[in-house]
Amino acid sequence: MAAYYALIMAGGIGKRLWPRSRHDRPKQSLRLVGDRTMFQHAVDRLAPLFGPEQIHVVTGVSHVKALAAQSPAIPEGNFIVEPEGRGTAPAIGLGAIHFARLDPDAVMVVLTADHFIADRECFRQVLAAAEDVARDGHLVTLGLKPSHPSTGYGYIQQGDPIGTVGGFEVFRADRFTEKPDLDEAVRMVESGSFTWNSGMFVWRVDRIMGEFQRQMPEFHAQLTTVAAALDTPDYETILARVWPQVTKQAIDYGVMEGAQDVSVIPVEIGWSDVGSWTSLADLLPADEQGNVISGLHLGVDTRNTLILADERFVATIGLEGLVIVDTEDALLICTREREQEVKEIVRRLEEEGMGDYL
Amino acid sequence: MAAYYALIMAGGIGKRLWPRSRHDRPKQSLRLVGDRTMFQHAVDRLAPLFGPEQIHVVTGVSHVKALAAQSPAIPEGNFIVEPEGRGTAPAIGLGAIHFARLDPDAVMVVLTADHFIADRECFRQVLAAAEDVARDGHLVTLGLKPSHPSTGYGYIQQGDPIGTVGGFEVFRADRFTEKPDLDEAVRMVESGSFTWNSGMFVWRVDRIMGEFQRQMPEFHAQLTTVAAALDTPDYETILARVWPQVTKQAIDYGVMEGAQDVSVIPVEIGWSDVGSWTSLADLLPADEQGNVISGLHLGVDTRNTLILADERFVATIGLEGLVIVDTEDALLICTREREQEVKEIVRRLEEEGMGDYL
Repeated sequence: MAAYYALIMAGGIGKRLWPRSRHDRPKQSLRLVGDRTMFQHAVDRLAPLFGPEQIHVVTGVSHVKALAAQSPAIPEGNFIVEPEGRGTAPAIGLGAIHFARLDPDAVMVVLTADHFIADRECFRQVLAAAEDVARDGHLVTLGLKPSHPSTGYGYIQQGDPIGTVGGFEVFRADRFTEKPDLDEAVRMVESGSFTWNSGMFVWRVDRIMGEFQRQMPEFHAQLTTVAAALDTPDYETILARVWPQVTKQAIDYGVMEGAQDVSVIPVEIGWSDVGSWTSLADLLPADEQGNVISGLHLGVDTRNTLILADERFVATIGLEGLVIVDTEDALLICTREREQEVKEIVRRLEEEGMGDYL
Repeated sequence: MAAYYALIMAGGIGKRLWPRSRHDRPKQSLRLVGDRTMFQHAVDRLAPLFGPEQIHVVTGVSHVKALAAQSPAIPEGNFIVEPEGRGTAPAIGLGAIHFARLDPDAVMVVLTADHFIADRECFRQVLAAAEDVARDGHLVTLGLKPSHPSTGYGYIQQGDPIGTVGGFEVFRADRFTEKPDLDEAVRMVESGSFTWNSGMFVWRVDRIMGEFQRQMPEFHAQLTTVAAALDTPDYETILARVWPQVTKQAIDYGVMEGAQDVSVIPVEIGWSDVGSWTSLADLLPADEQGNVISGLHLGVDTRNTLILADERFVATIGLEGLVIVDTEDALLICTREREQEVKEIVRRLEEEGMGDYL
């Protein structure tokens, strides 16, 4: 039987989790839930479906050392280093040529390093089922059954049912939509035939390469150049020459929206993108006042507030609905409603040359 | 002409300014306004009316070293150390016997180490005028013209006018009242004949000793025992034996309410007791959003907020009317309305044995 590989994309910073996330301490390296880093969780939950030798990681040169240290069981050669990030399509393409060299008939699953999944058992079951569907030539997407009409995610519209595999219903994916406005999100969620696009995909390596060739021919030619250098001493030189010329592209827009034989498996796996402090708070146990606290805290009439402060003692009086995140050199205090504007803080730090805090 | 001495009482902690104020870093040693400590301000504003040799400081054994270091011009022997704090009456009595030894006809002014006075010129002028009134045998109190109907201070009711001295009107003080409720405070302020009790007094040493003898005879006897040991090798031993037996007493209740020939000089000297974070904020320059900021800060839609954070960078989003005080090991976040409850935090730290933060 042909191989099944996992590709964990671990290139981002996670700006919305500033001040914990920094250039040299990206989100996937943070211990946000329990005492394992997000990357370690991403690796842990693949066992026993994937052994360490089946797990590959695509990341930037500045992150690779820290990630390798976090998961020493993964062979060093499985860390695929991008000279610079060019979006998800190139990262996946780079993974695909590595897998194709190992086994031209391989199936690969594309995963993220910084999301949380509560139901690991169900997650592995759907990955196992998706492999079967992918072997038949489908580009399989994992669609997350929506818990609320989020305007923060893309949606996938289910079409005709294809069948049931491993206990999971599989549908044709009729359409990928970008982040909707609230009215549209409500309509989609109420229809029952839309799921959130998780960014997790399963497909045969030859199928995704075929889609690159058909839909992103220039990138496919660049990939072919890099692939020809695999296992040669020139690989890094050639990759470093080619990669800056690669057009930035997301896999959704570059491939999925126009791909053939795309299917979706709707799942409920307790997924969270941990995309903001509030979404992290939702994953952690709250006290009777609705507070989520990490660190030494005394509160007088403090409610519905997230306090992450392992560096120093925090006292609060009369607070409601705040996010308080302390680090050694920087402190964030904002309302839960406006936590998305953390990105604005990061932008202004960049603009004002305060790079020490980035 | 007989001597005029200043007695600065510097024994407190200033709990309401936690987490900046600590047992080993009391309020009078903090640089809250400008780059001088509150104690240094208290000394500075006496010049040139009082030379350093005329200034005496009554304080606790744990504070004396730090205070002496802050004002090296004050002779070492002018620091009068209480074995333990017994309230303002005993502290003043201890100062009085020291002054009486230097000059039995001396006049003394009683001052605090942790208040702010904006108009230093006027302050010295009223101290000079008060000396003249005190020489005539009056117990002179400085009454602060109220800016609002505060329920946090005691009030002094003016009686018959005595005259004008050095440009200041002097009145008989008819009555001392404790902290009033709001209705009473409004009534008193509207009447125009009440001032706040500043806790600053000017009197002849023999007059205050006479009041101690008449109104606090047991304490007067204890003082006499201590006074007899002045300039002997037994002084510290005797003080350490007597002082724990002294009943705790405030000068207002112990002496002023029942004293004879009490007068009041109403003044406007830009006084603040800096008794809370908000009252400190009122003394510091605010930006266009009403924020008072010390330290490196980026704010998105942040208003009417005090941020004292010299230890680390602070980012805030969507905040209104908060007090944020950061220190190396402890952080306070509270609403302006409820800052009085900082005392509750301090109480709970004591109760829960978290003395590292006290």
